[in-house]
Amino acid sequence: MKNIVERLLQGDRRALARMVTLIENELPQAHAYLAELHQHSGKAHIVGVTGSPGAGKSTLVTRMVRELRRQDRKVGVIAVDPSSPFSGGAILGDRIRMMELAGDPNVFIRSMASRGHLGGLSTATRDVVRAMDAAGYDPIIIETVGTGQAEVEIMRTAQTVLVTMAPGMGDDIQAIKAGILEIADIFVVSKADKPGADQTAAELTMLLSLDPNRRQSAWRIPVIKTSSLKEQGIPELIDALQKHQSYLKESGMLAQRAQRQIQSEIQTLILQAVAKTLQATVGTEEWNALVEDVTRRERDPYSVATNLQERIGLQHPIP
Amino acid sequence: MKNIVERLLQGDRRALARMVTLIENELPQAHAYLAELHQHSGKAHIVGVTGSPGAGKSTLVTRMVRELRRQDRKVGVIAVDPSSPFSGGAILGDRIRMMELAGDPNVFIRSMASRGHLGGLSTATRDVVRAMDAAGYDPIIIETVGTGQAEVEIMRTAQTVLVTMAPGMGDDIQAIKAGILEIADIFVVSKADKPGADQTAAELTMLLSLDPNRRQSAWRIPVIKTSSLKEQGIPELIDALQKHQSYLKESGMLAQRAQRQIQSEIQTLILQAVAKTLQATVGTEEWNALVEDVTRRERDPYSVATNLQERIGLQHPIP
Repeated sequence: MKNIVERLLQGDRRALARMVTLIENELPQAHAYLAELHQHSGKAHIVGVTGSPGAGKSTLVTRMVRELRRQDRKVGVIAVDPSSPFSGGAILGDRIRMMELAGDPNVFIRSMASRGHLGGLSTATRDVVRAMDAAGYDPIIIETVGTGQAEVEIMRTAQTVLVTMAPGMGDDIQAIKAGILEIADIFVVSKADKPGADQTAAELTMLLSLDPNRRQSAWRIPVIKTSSLKEQGIPELIDALQKHQSYLKESGMLAQRAQRQIQSEIQTLILQAVAKTLQATVGTEEWNALVEDVTRRERDPYSVATNLQERIGLQHPIP
Repeated sequence: MKNIVERLLQGDRRALARMVTLIENELPQAHAYLAELHQHSGKAHIVGVTGSPGAGKSTLVTRMVRELRRQDRKVGVIAVDPSSPFSGGAILGDRIRMMELAGDPNVFIRSMASRGHLGGLSTATRDVVRAMDAAGYDPIIIETVGTGQAEVEIMRTAQTVLVTMAPGMGDDIQAIKAGILEIADIFVVSKADKPGADQTAAELTMLLSLDPNRRQSAWRIPVIKTSSLKEQGIPELIDALQKHQSYLKESGMLAQRAQRQIQSEIQTLILQAVAKTLQATVGTEEWNALVEDVTRRERDPYSVATNLQERIGLQHPIP
């Protein structure tokens, strides 16, 4: 019997599905398999799609996938929901729409929700991208709900970031978080059949023309209006994605971004290992006693942290 | 000459301002001073105020401070802006309104913006709260812009979380992130003179009555309408804050929350030390070479991370 890595590399969907489960459950084998998969990855165009709730992201992604399938591409979709760190519940309601795509053997869709621990969701997203990439999916679309810092974090995995907004939602330009606006490579004004779409697009274009960083860049951010009612905008959007990928390659920015991501990935892996070691070294009872001492002001958090660092073997930072 | 800690404990504003600067700049002395301050902290009521941009948070905080001053309280305000991890620019525009309070020697206001690194902003916020608390400010109000995960993170420092929304902004209940709704202890419908305020308040009350977690809790979340035009709601709000603090004390939840926070603080301190050690151990040139190898698929990120863990002395996590 071939192992999961070989089967995944040959495009076996069940092997890929199993790998995603290993990643999500943080099983120890996952890293060994992913280390092998790494050398087969790095080929896919990774596209992030984000925007406020109600901006029509799921519909947009569904239509993008359909167009990409018409062009005979093998498409991966990861729908990520970091919105609720407490309940862990993913608002997957309108993603059901995407299910119509799930029967296609050349489309692989997976939903992921927050586990609420240190960078867990963005790490898992990156690992799932690596697995899909090695399995031959290209492009891979990462869709997030919302526009907070968690989404910005996840979007760092993407090479091309697409920010969607719907006209007349009151959530237009003002309300969209600065962080998301700054990482956008392409803007989509969805529901372009609704009143206000032209105005939203015009405001965006104006905003972009005023931004000195944007003006210096050789990439002119396109503002694309889409409408599922009027079947408008999707081929232009797919075309813009490909243009952006070419721009990234030719300008050397693709390599630069990849390097930045690899660096942050290595750092995160180390921090996660520290968290695990700590958990294994200090038992629950001792934790409770330490915390109790600090809460009662008999000790302070800074000296407790220094002690624990010594116990897990960590060398002192050079001051 | 007395040292900064003694002066701060005696209520010297310049000593407090200097401590905040030490914290913000992450100077090595800060931790030693904070360790001393820790035993003098734990007295203040820490109140978080959050909500979408445009929900009238700054006006609300200004009016809260005025009412608290009428009651002769010594008030600390920390205005935090995590919205832009890239430019680091704080949208402080409408906070200028708060400046009218800055002349009062019993009000201490400080703005903080994101530095964009690992938990840096929430750590700094917690440290500044500790310093203000030790200096005798009570309550301490933490105001954040926006409703993303970073804000939820920062709000964990607060004992009582107040979520504001304005009627008819299109940003009402649907658009406010689940994470923020779940941590709310008090709701404020601001701009209550505007049409739609009663409806927003009614929708919120309804939403709360449907939530099974809320129904189990002994704390009935109040929905308070405020209007600066009609000078309405602020005394009720201050009253609700004090009721919530009493509830937390009597139910034992104040101690519980404090313990959870101390635990997460110690963990964060350790992770930040790891990040520093790593920076000091692996020089820029070596980092670049490692990243280059991984980018070229000659090595994989997982084994590089394992090697670096060994070099900084970290013991292996027990699998």
